[in-house]
Amino acid sequence: MLTLDKIYHAKYVLKQVIRETDLIHAPNINPEANVYLKTENLQITGSFKVRGAYYRISQLSDEEKARGVIACSAGNHAQGVALAATKNGIKSLICLPDGAPISKVEATKNYGADVCLVEGVYDDAYAKALELRDEKGYTFIHPFDDEDVIAGQGTIGLELVEQLPNLDAVVVPIGGGGLISGVAFAIKSLNPKVKIYGVQATGAPSMFNSVHDGHIERLESVSTIADGIAVKEPGTNTFEYCSKYVDEIVTVTDDEISAAILALMEQQKLVSEGAGAVSAAAVMFNKVPVKGKNVVCLISGGNIDVTILSRVIKRGLLMSGRSCSLNIELVDKPGQLKKVSEIIASLGGNVTSIHHERANEGSDVIGCYLRIVLETRNYQHIEQIKQALKDSGLKLV
Amino acid sequence: MLTLDKIYHAKYVLKQVIRETDLIHAPNINPEANVYLKTENLQITGSFKVRGAYYRISQLSDEEKARGVIACSAGNHAQGVALAATKNGIKSLICLPDGAPISKVEATKNYGADVCLVEGVYDDAYAKALELRDEKGYTFIHPFDDEDVIAGQGTIGLELVEQLPNLDAVVVPIGGGGLISGVAFAIKSLNPKVKIYGVQATGAPSMFNSVHDGHIERLESVSTIADGIAVKEPGTNTFEYCSKYVDEIVTVTDDEISAAILALMEQQKLVSEGAGAVSAAAVMFNKVPVKGKNVVCLISGGNIDVTILSRVIKRGLLMSGRSCSLNIELVDKPGQLKKVSEIIASLGGNVTSIHHERANEGSDVIGCYLRIVLETRNYQHIEQIKQALKDSGLKLV
Repeated sequence: MLTLDKIYHAKYVLKQVIRETDLIHAPNINPEANVYLKTENLQITGSFKVRGAYYRISQLSDEEKARGVIACSAGNHAQGVALAATKNGIKSLICLPDGAPISKVEATKNYGADVCLVEGVYDDAYAKALELRDEKGYTFIHPFDDEDVIAGQGTIGLELVEQLPNLDAVVVPIGGGGLISGVAFAIKSLNPKVKIYGVQATGAPSMFNSVHDGHIERLESVSTIADGIAVKEPGTNTFEYCSKYVDEIVTVTDDEISAAILALMEQQKLVSEGAGAVSAAAVMFNKVPVKGKNVVCLISGGNIDVTILSRVIKRGLLMSGRSCSLNIELVDKPGQLKKVSEIIASLGGNVTSIHHERANEGSDVIGCYLRIVLETRNYQHIEQIKQALKDSGLKLV
Repeated sequence: MLTLDKIYHAKYVLKQVIRETDLIHAPNINPEANVYLKTENLQITGSFKVRGAYYRISQLSDEEKARGVIACSAGNHAQGVALAATKNGIKSLICLPDGAPISKVEATKNYGADVCLVEGVYDDAYAKALELRDEKGYTFIHPFDDEDVIAGQGTIGLELVEQLPNLDAVVVPIGGGGLISGVAFAIKSLNPKVKIYGVQATGAPSMFNSVHDGHIERLESVSTIADGIAVKEPGTNTFEYCSKYVDEIVTVTDDEISAAILALMEQQKLVSEGAGAVSAAAVMFNKVPVKGKNVVCLISGGNIDVTILSRVIKRGLLMSGRSCSLNIELVDKPGQLKKVSEIIASLGGNVTSIHHERANEGSDVIGCYLRIVLETRNYQHIEQIKQALKDSGLKLV
């Protein structure tokens, strides 16, 4: 059974291994609240997962340690288990679906694990891991539904109440629910007045649905850029803890997550993965009632592929009104481009690309078509520019 | 005159205002050294500049405070002065060249400054600031060549000797030289054995040239992605301090800086600007002798435009062998694309884009042309793929 004692013990065991990550003030995430970020993206391995994995592995018997551990993950849990096993001086084998990104496979190997690439998707890799466990006697390290793992994640709760004694609320990402179970248990045990809010992606609301309906439900499929929390089914233990200790669970869309990733980069200079940013997204977009409160967004990890990050930046700029693309139909005569440029420049828009083309299918034979991408300040600014273009007789299509 | 007392006083004054930023272990920046990052990119305003600006402004007389301050900057100094003035309850006016990015202008306004956009480049904005100072009686806050400013930056040195008592070397970006002057003075005063290395961009080596030649030199022009350290001429004071206290100054190229920005994002989840990453670049590319040493890279700031960041990511992936583009000439018959795909897949390359085109100018009439962009592991991996394609009779062009 999970106890506060166990979480304190995990804290003691983890002390020499993990970083007590910084709590950073983030005044602009939501100006109506007093927002702080718990930066587990700056944890070793780039996510909180190493806490639970290390504590779990440290508690194995010598015999279990001698046989080694196995896990199934394409992400943070893989890296957490790999590093935790290496630091405990034992062998680890990680099963990954063969489509896993090169960067994740390499990172897992670099932390000292052997990697077993399994044809298929996550479920296939999971089946293979269980098969190898039974065959070879490895201990299977569950990513979330395990009390030692939950106790390890709960150490974050202990750190938070020390780092911010006047804490009112904590906002925590939910995938399988291991992180929020530990954090909620630790904090509610010490101070039941602190609110615990959970956040899932709209495209993977397994715990959200299950808690709402009062029993565990399995999703047919999941789809979100927050791959770290794209979990089809909550655990038995984590479902119980969430039902009991979490005040409310909300969801955020991929667009909201993208905007949060961008805000964390621009305002706080922090790289967070989709799963890591859902807590900030929930506070940014007022999904949780934190007005006037001292609230911590738990940024659970930062392991995002940089090519995805590039796409998120682009999308986030569009979403926040910081970039827009306009299609303008022009009469094909000299001076038209100059007119458009002047209007945009006079209103402080910054052109980043122009595509200018004559008479394509959609336009008049004597017309031409101008596609402009602009850097803008916000939505009001975009509307102001659009209006000025219309007022001068130009047609936006 | 700069004294250790003054730097300790600055530390006392700054205590309630700035963050004592975290020192984070970064084992993969250079595996032959024991590397730590001093994360001033996580400082309020996103850079160390607020330290010097705040201390300088706090030391003004009541009469000077009543008149307000003025500064000239399109970057971190602007935001530092703006916030420092606001926190001191006084007015600030920042002169910026009118081509400054919208994001920087907005950030400066958001910290409470009035902004004066001046037609032209930095030098024009600087002239305007001095004119307004003389006309209105504002105090001009110099970005680096001022002893209070240098004392403020020096507080980082005091933090470092406490955070890492067995420190061997510190690597510090140099623009005008205020940061390294303060850090070097503080650390050398306490422990002369610690090595202080300065880093400039190859495209803006003003302090590098000046110290090398033994007198202050002015560059005709500067060109680097590290805009925060693109300074044409060292200060009189900073030149003296660098000559006396800095062990060696080195330079890094824009490609090296891009690779460092990418490494800091991927490995450490930290967003750094070009100027902030030059210290990491110097250690990554062995420009400074830190093998086997406990070395701190001072990451001075993180205020980089996200659109530039996107370009840096792309460039950095190419530079580090993590992405490559291949041009292949094919015979125009069925099955050719399949052959190429099979070779690449069998070696673990991940195709991210393909452009396939018939008979353009450069190729045979019956041939066609394939341009493939790949995700790869490293340069060896790229060579392995190229060799396999050649071995199968394909022509790389």
